[in-house]
Amino acid sequence: MAYRETEHTRQRKAETRQRLLEAARQLVAEQGFAAATAAAVAQRSGVAAGTIYRHFPNKSELVAEVFRYATEHEIAQVKVASELGESASEHLHHAVHVFAQRALQGATLAYALIAEPVDPRVERERLKYRFAYAELFEDLIHSGIEAQEFSQQDTAVSAAALVGLLAEALVGPLSQRFRDQSRDSNTPDNPYLIEQLVTLSLRLLGANPSP
Amino acid sequence: MAYRETEHTRQRKAETRQRLLEAARQLVAEQGFAAATAAAVAQRSGVAAGTIYRHFPNKSELVAEVFRYATEHEIAQVKVASELGESASEHLHHAVHVFAQRALQGATLAYALIAEPVDPRVERERLKYRFAYAELFEDLIHSGIEAQEFSQQDTAVSAAALVGLLAEALVGPLSQRFRDQSRDSNTPDNPYLIEQLVTLSLRLLGANPSP
Repeated sequence: MAYRETEHTRQRKAETRQRLLEAARQLVAEQGFAAATAAAVAQRSGVAAGTIYRHFPNKSELVAEVFRYATEHEIAQVKVASELGESASEHLHHAVHVFAQRALQGATLAYALIAEPVDPRVERERLKYRFAYAELFEDLIHSGIEAQEFSQQDTAVSAAALVGLLAEALVGPLSQRFRDQSRDSNTPDNPYLIEQLVTLSLRLLGANPSP
Repeated sequence: MAYRETEHTRQRKAETRQRLLEAARQLVAEQGFAAATAAAVAQRSGVAAGTIYRHFPNKSELVAEVFRYATEHEIAQVKVASELGESASEHLHHAVHVFAQRALQGATLAYALIAEPVDPRVERERLKYRFAYAELFEDLIHSGIEAQEFSQQDTAVSAAALVGLLAEALVGPLSQRFRDQSRDSNTPDNPYLIEQLVTLSLRLLGANPSP
């Protein structure tokens, strides 16, 4: 009986934790990390402000976990896209397209993940997030070299370069939309910018011109 | 007489401020931003710990100013390099070479400027720093297009992409050296990596193959 009570308590605790995370994620997607204060998260999830600290030792820890949660989802989407098409160039085209399109459509979340000034605890998650993308791209570049579609190159250096290229070229447009966040957040994507990024990425890797 | 006393006081104040900044810069170059605590800066510059707060409202403000001070110097060096050589490809080659070489030789400072997790106040300076590099590269790309050496492209997008490429490809090697900072900080540069970065940069911009 005591065991079942503990189990029940644990489950409720897990549910509350999930609710707090989800509320924080929504706040970040709407207004960035700066908006995910303990008070706002508590209010959004309908718990007392103090409850947060029973689930996360401090606000940074909550925000870092939201960061992990949101980025895993983003990386999974790009991974799926990177398997579309036949050639390595097509894989890359789809991956870059989805990365940029998702960023521009969810500009506030993307800016928060890529560039919003955050505290060092969260910044460390950001470095991991970029390494996770680099790993994904490294596999892709490796296949492209094997298939003689891409130039010979150091795949680790080129993969990191590709992540940097995409993130930095998006920071300007995203920060603009981030500042404009009070307007309609469903801003249309920017097909011209996305095409530029695909072209730059293919060129970076020395991809054969498409037939 | 009263005026001259004020003048004297002002000058002494400016000197102390400069001494604090220089001490903080040295600490960052040796061990990163995390080491530039108020106590360490005070000790290094030979002032009482409380004195710092007469010159900077808080530690973040001091660190942000050190960031500006150090980055202006770095950008000036790359600017000088970007004027060497005859063609746009040569300008780019020199600029990328100097950027990467300086980063690898002063790995702790470079990692601190490019990627060390810092508080949001300093992170904002970092975004400005990256925009300053983008501006420098944008002029260079523009000349290369005019001279028909580089592909037609959106110079703002490509300049940001180039900054991202360089920063991100250096983060891995720099963070390794940053962690190894207790060893000799005069690590040799890495000519192989530098050459890779030059190749990637030229390819990114669609530079004509060298004659």
